[in-house]
Amino acid sequence: MSVSLFTDRMWSGLFGDEEVQQAFALETTLDRYLAYEVALTNALFSHALISVEAKDAVLAGCRDFTPDIEALSAGVAQDGVPIPAFIRQLRAGIAEPYAVECHKTSTSQDVMDTALALALKDVSAILLGHLSGVLDALKTLKSANVDRMLMGRTRMQAALPITAGDRITTWIEPLKRHQQRLSDATELVAVLQYGGPVGNSSGQGKPTQFIAAEMAAELELQVTPNSWHTQRDNLVGYANVLSMISGSLGKMGADITLMAQQGIDEVKLSGGGGSSAMAHKHNPIKAELLVTLARYNSSQISAMHSTLVHEQERSGAAWALEWMVLPGMCMATASGLHSALQLLQQIEWIGTAVSD
Amino acid sequence: MSVSLFTDRMWSGLFGDEEVQQAFALETTLDRYLAYEVALTNALFSHALISVEAKDAVLAGCRDFTPDIEALSAGVAQDGVPIPAFIRQLRAGIAEPYAVECHKTSTSQDVMDTALALALKDVSAILLGHLSGVLDALKTLKSANVDRMLMGRTRMQAALPITAGDRITTWIEPLKRHQQRLSDATELVAVLQYGGPVGNSSGQGKPTQFIAAEMAAELELQVTPNSWHTQRDNLVGYANVLSMISGSLGKMGADITLMAQQGIDEVKLSGGGGSSAMAHKHNPIKAELLVTLARYNSSQISAMHSTLVHEQERSGAAWALEWMVLPGMCMATASGLHSALQLLQQIEWIGTAVSD
Amino acid sequence: MSVSLFTDRMWSGLFGDEEVQQAFALETTLDRYLAYEVALTNALFSHALISVEAKDAVLAGCRDFTPDIEALSAGVAQDGVPIPAFIRQLRAGIAEPYAVECHKTSTSQDVMDTALALALKDVSAILLGHLSGVLDALKTLKSANVDRMLMGRTRMQAALPITAGDRITTWIEPLKRHQQRLSDATELVAVLQYGGPVGNSSGQGKPTQFIAAEMAAELELQVTPNSWHTQRDNLVGYANVLSMISGSLGKMGADITLMAQQGIDEVKLSGGGGSSAMAHKHNPIKAELLVTLARYNSSQISAMHSTLVHEQERSGAAWALEWMVLPGMCMATASGLHSALQLLQQIEWIGTAVSD
Amino acid sequence: MSVSLFTDRMWSGLFGDEEVQQAFALETTLDRYLAYEVALTNALFSHALISVEAKDAVLAGCRDFTPDIEALSAGVAQDGVPIPAFIRQLRAGIAEPYAVECHKTSTSQDVMDTALALALKDVSAILLGHLSGVLDALKTLKSANVDRMLMGRTRMQAALPITAGDRITTWIEPLKRHQQRLSDATELVAVLQYGGPVGNSSGQGKPTQFIAAEMAAELELQVTPNSWHTQRDNLVGYANVLSMISGSLGKMGADITLMAQQGIDEVKLSGGGGSSAMAHKHNPIKAELLVTLARYNSSQISAMHSTLVHEQERSGAAWALEWMVLPGMCMATASGLHSALQLLQQIEWIGTAVSD
Repeated sequence: MSVSLFTDRMWSGLFGDEEVQQAFALETTLDRYLAYEVALTNALFSHALISVEAKDAVLAGCRDFTPDIEALSAGVAQDGVPIPAFIRQLRAGIAEPYAVECHKTSTSQDVMDTALALALKDVSAILLGHLSGVLDALKTLKSANVDRMLMGRTRMQAALPITAGDRITTWIEPLKRHQQRLSDATELVAVLQYGGPVGNSSGQGKPTQFIAAEMAAELELQVTPNSWHTQRDNLVGYANVLSMISGSLGKMGADITLMAQQGIDEVKLSGGGGSSAMAHKHNPIKAELLVTLARYNSSQISAMHSTLVHEQERSGAAWALEWMVLPGMCMATASGLHSALQLLQQIEWIGTAVSD
Repeated sequence: MSVSLFTDRMWSGLFGDEEVQQAFALETTLDRYLAYEVALTNALFSHALISVEAKDAVLAGCRDFTPDIEALSAGVAQDGVPIPAFIRQLRAGIAEPYAVECHKTSTSQDVMDTALALALKDVSAILLGHLSGVLDALKTLKSANVDRMLMGRTRMQAALPITAGDRITTWIEPLKRHQQRLSDATELVAVLQYGGPVGNSSGQGKPTQFIAAEMAAELELQVTPNSWHTQRDNLVGYANVLSMISGSLGKMGADITLMAQQGIDEVKLSGGGGSSAMAHKHNPIKAELLVTLARYNSSQISAMHSTLVHEQERSGAAWALEWMVLPGMCMATASGLHSALQLLQQIEWIGTAVSD
Repeated sequence: MSVSLFTDRMWSGLFGDEEVQQAFALETTLDRYLAYEVALTNALFSHALISVEAKDAVLAGCRDFTPDIEALSAGVAQDGVPIPAFIRQLRAGIAEPYAVECHKTSTSQDVMDTALALALKDVSAILLGHLSGVLDALKTLKSANVDRMLMGRTRMQAALPITAGDRITTWIEPLKRHQQRLSDATELVAVLQYGGPVGNSSGQGKPTQFIAAEMAAELELQVTPNSWHTQRDNLVGYANVLSMISGSLGKMGADITLMAQQGIDEVKLSGGGGSSAMAHKHNPIKAELLVTLARYNSSQISAMHSTLVHEQERSGAAWALEWMVLPGMCMATASGLHSALQLLQQIEWIGTAVSD
Repeated sequence: MSVSLFTDRMWSGLFGDEEVQQAFALETTLDRYLAYEVALTNALFSHALISVEAKDAVLAGCRDFTPDIEALSAGVAQDGVPIPAFIRQLRAGIAEPYAVECHKTSTSQDVMDTALALALKDVSAILLGHLSGVLDALKTLKSANVDRMLMGRTRMQAALPITAGDRITTWIEPLKRHQQRLSDATELVAVLQYGGPVGNSSGQGKPTQFIAAEMAAELELQVTPNSWHTQRDNLVGYANVLSMISGSLGKMGADITLMAQQGIDEVKLSGGGGSSAMAHKHNPIKAELLVTLARYNSSQISAMHSTLVHEQERSGAAWALEWMVLPGMCMATASGLHSALQLLQQIEWIGTAVSD
């Protein structure tokens, strides 16, 4: 065991996904915090809320910034979020009297939620790539086996013969819907956050919409009329798609473990996992893993839904629960997709040739 | 306590919703089973799979059918589903030799899933009506209080003043999105099921699509190219919307319980619940209930996601879990919506007039 | 589908349990409310907190009480709990000036939690009876099959031969532990609640402990030094045992569905569920149901744990969530136990005789 | 965000616990795998199942062993568990012909479950230490504030005055029960695993009990008559205690966030978290975190319960789910306990002096 199988040196080869891990890496996260401040500075200048000298000073500070991780860590322990310490560090490198112009009008949540939006955009690109690979492999598998026969089984009992194509179709169709769902859900979460201290974007002295639109354009994010500080439904919707992907892969995994049983023998897998005690074993590791990951995400989704009870203008309790759960759901989904690809590539045939 | 607060005579006034209960009532369900068989019979005749005499005999049997509930109950205990017993009863009232033509080409899951599709269509209409009422009440509330002041609170601490309109906006916006989500999700579940014994619609001897299209038209449902026996993602997507509605109402409920505290006094509620020991208490019952229902649905959604692992051509284990969970989620959502409406109608004012 | 499969006329034969349903029935619940008030009245008199005339008047009122369910239902909708309306009704039948002496020193939660304690005591007796029956059947099954051979399977792959006795042992041992756990957990929840309006038992004017001890003795419950209004850990511990029972039965159910597959044929079940489309099917309905119920309770337990966040002196939000979840968990556990018994009784043999 | 807040360099100061992290660290884990093999080798020799030369060769190999983590990682990706690769590496360093005597009679799960048992024993010692510190702080807090007055609040409404002592008592009592629960649960999981390939301890050629007893003594673990390969109830029971601890701390955290509201002002916290936008804010970070962690563990516990459906002699699917969930639950519990301690130490007073 390990505190995080997703990142552990020994376990991550099975449970992790390097690309998604990179999307949530500390360095990536800090770069996104900086990108937020740069975009904010540009937009504030654009709307004459800061001077050109202030803008140049802040951007120079951002350019030369090297974070002190230890101090950020102490900041998190103190403040619950890294941004106050991050801004202190950033301002320390900005020529006076302009330090105070950095982060002007913004609050911690603006920075962190925007960084999350950028992360999820990356995650979606990765997952859509994986999904596409899995669907290609499934189509190939279907072509090669479409007319081979399987015993159709209902309630774990032999029912009537079907074709391998029939069953593979039930693996393909939900994943195709998930492609669309994931694209749609990404549109809704790849959204700038810019609400200020209490989320109502007040106090900027100029129509916030123009500033937000300019920041969003620079960051390649969407923008909404109001901030989403306490409106977390789109995040929950996103998590829902993740768990649905894992769930559909879990169905495929369960089917394949059942088909691979001795006495059933409806699939031939090359490779398979070895045992420390039984040399003859070839375990359908990846197929079982798909079931595990489906169960994992189906429990995590419950926590995500409970974050909707986000009281007042910012709930530290509900917000932090997202941080604990959502990245792991992304990892589990990615892990499932590339395990599914590996599993599909292991399949030599499904079912029985009709001429047999 | 009660085994089902949703239907208990004493408790359902708080936790139940009569309309949604009716949509899942036994009589309604049996009517839908019959409607399926009627539509099937018409379509089979239309495509010359049964004779006009068979059609007339079956339809006559359906018209005169009176179910024996006790025998259906015994059938469920034996078969896990009521349809085998239901068909036996139905056929017993059909003139020979045509009894066997009833239910031809179909399987239990076709009937039950189609009945579910019809039920969810009704449920959605009810919920959309409730949602619309809540949104109207929120708009009225916002108009009346838009410029009154509240202390904006973040992490449970006073932050900066906001308007009542600011906060009410955060209650309104997610619910408007949920209207669209629920409409979209309903389109995807209001779908005929017609897959036959192993879901591949084989064995009907004629292009299944035409039969299905005709049945769907009669039942006012959508139709998909393949059956969805083991593809439960649209149901999970539907449940997801239910839980999101409850979650967003839970945020509003939590806010109102916090605003109603003595010492905070940011909302004035008329009415309120009494206490058996303290005559002075006016408890914000409905506001608390919204939090309860949010927590309830956020746990149920986990079970729904786990049903996606639906092995082979029909998983009795996964399928029955839907039956245990989804109707309760519908009830909790409906209960939350009408409690929210009552709560909003109790609000005399929010926040402080600016001139104060 | 039905809003409650546990109580529905058509479905409860499979999902319900009449005895547990009775333990939570409305009539039973109201009887327990009355029993609480009678015990309270006796104890208050015993400690000279009410006069003999008051005691006699209150007891007479209790004796002759007929509840008006419709008014109780309206009370629940208004107050969130039935007790204020219940006490009003009860007092209306008590000769003046003694009506006010009824319920003296108590609060709604005292009555309702005590009624729950009594209900759970009954539920435990029922479940322990069921558990004992299942264990007897398992021992019989083991005796009859102990030396027959099964293929031991790990990761869904044939590993090495084991005996039927080996596998049945893994079904028996957890259930034996659950017997002890359930007895222990029952001790901790079969506890009088007597805390008064804010749970600190203040205001009774006499050492509360003596009153509580006398009430507990009359009601055959345990007593604790302080009330447990906001300390719900023992209830969660109880629910945990319920879900563990269901989970262990789910393992047995999953095993049996796998053993019953054609091509595996390691168990012979008599009976089995029929299909509306395939006359040859004999579905292992009860075995699948055990898996369903395990998944059900494993999602409900999450809601129970979340009730531990029970703010201040009484959280309506957290408390009501218990009501929504715990009785259903009791039903699912009971249903699993008697389905397990039926399933075990269907088993003709397990595995292969060694001489084969 | 981060894939694991528990271990991330920036976040772990708030969410992590160094001691528990160490208990699950890769190096610690590999040491425990080795300790298992050493104990096994000693016990096999003791019962004449291997020669003295074999024993000495294996022990020498264990002594000099340096794991190749990269190869272990590749092994996990291939086999689903690290033990086959671990044993290959270990045997490569054992003088021939004795390499094969290493790990004799054992299977991967024996090694990994025993390592888990050792880890949980350490975790429990850490948690019990933390719990004891929290209880001490609570007793000190209670002593200092026992007679100060608070408004007792039920259903989020002012009810009747109570003392600070009354409320603190409701925080203390569950934690005291959890101390006992955790000790008891630890006894049940600190158990050697020694079941061999299919869990029935067959094939060792000698009474397994003696070997197991000797190994358990060397490893300072308990021993049970049969292996617990598929009997995961004690692990679930352990996880249940973890989540109950977090839940009870969540109640305290929720109370303190409510008491710390402006307008309520029933607690004075020194320190508190800062804001990047509002210099006047002092956020009750740790109190909110306790609520977050309660919600986290209350969702994770659902996954643990679902692992009870552990099919046949070893379910890769169910087993791996434990690995994904249980260490995080341990971390969240530890994090909650030391955050609770910090929070309690921040409290300057609770409630109002009576003389006020």
